[in-house]
Amino acid sequence: MSSIDLYLIRHGIAGEHGSYANDDERPLTAEGKQKTRQVAQRLHALTLRFDLILTSPLVRARQTADILLEAMLSQTVQVSSHLAPGGKLEEWLEWLQDGRSPDATTLALVGHEPNLSTWAETLVWGEARGALSLKKAGVIGLALPEQSLVGNSTLFWLTPPRFLR
Amino acid sequence: MSSIDLYLIRHGIAGEHGSYANDDERPLTAEGKQKTRQVAQRLHALTLRFDLILTSPLVRARQTADILLEAMLSQTVQVSSHLAPGGKLEEWLEWLQDGRSPDATTLALVGHEPNLSTWAETLVWGEARGALSLKKAGVIGLALPEQSLVGNSTLFWLTPPRFLR
Repeated sequence: MSSIDLYLIRHGIAGEHGSYANDDERPLTAEGKQKTRQVAQRLHALTLRFDLILTSPLVRARQTADILLEAMLSQTVQVSSHLAPGGKLEEWLEWLQDGRSPDATTLALVGHEPNLSTWAETLVWGEARGALSLKKAGVIGLALPEQSLVGNSTLFWLTPPRFLR
Repeated sequence: MSSIDLYLIRHGIAGEHGSYANDDERPLTAEGKQKTRQVAQRLHALTLRFDLILTSPLVRARQTADILLEAMLSQTVQVSSHLAPGGKLEEWLEWLQDGRSPDATTLALVGHEPNLSTWAETLVWGEARGALSLKKAGVIGLALPEQSLVGNSTLFWLTPPRFLR
């Protein structure tokens, strides 16, 4: 497998927990949309482009992925059940190995906490200790090696949205 | 002790290793100064301000600290031997406890690799595995708790200079 640049992007600010009968349908707030657009525009100005954006199926994540698409950060968004809350890193790694187009080497995942920071810690340190702070619309950048990804990836970026204005 | 925001900043691009009889005196190159100034200006625009900048005594670090000072990121620079290559985290933590003015709660350290990323990993995970990529003129942001800093700090920022343009 080729080495991969992986960007983990947390969904933007959404409506309050409990304000929707089905939590999966909570949308981004107006503020959440606006701040996520700022982040997307900054990522574009930094010349980031993704071969593929994978998103959690939940509304607040899909809306975030759509904003990244509108900002021309990628031409392709795919919904992935692995990125729903509680999704397992091992299963996503199987997709990476067997389900991904080999040409897709710069990937963005749009999802939820604590999943994203837990996945990042596991890829980098082999275990998760809750030591990374990933804000809503924040970004983590990981360099994945060609093999033995868990515990051998490198963290090269972690930023809250306030530093992406 | 109060909680502390700690920014670890690696010195900018310096002359080639071996090009100076005394490695401690290698200065920043013209490119190193220019890129470090860009980083400093961006940090200023992000409204970062430091109560104190501590710098390694080596020329390339002191020049980097001076550029941060010129960009109005702080009013005070102190040279600290703990930040020289090979400096021990334990000894710096003693200074933090006993030698620091209690008012100084937002600190920047200017120093060298692998020291800075090793200190960051140790504060965050309790041990270092070389999993953080800190480029020259890159920045790490850590939130230190009030006590038991080692293994209990939080990483909230890690950025290469190319994302601080």
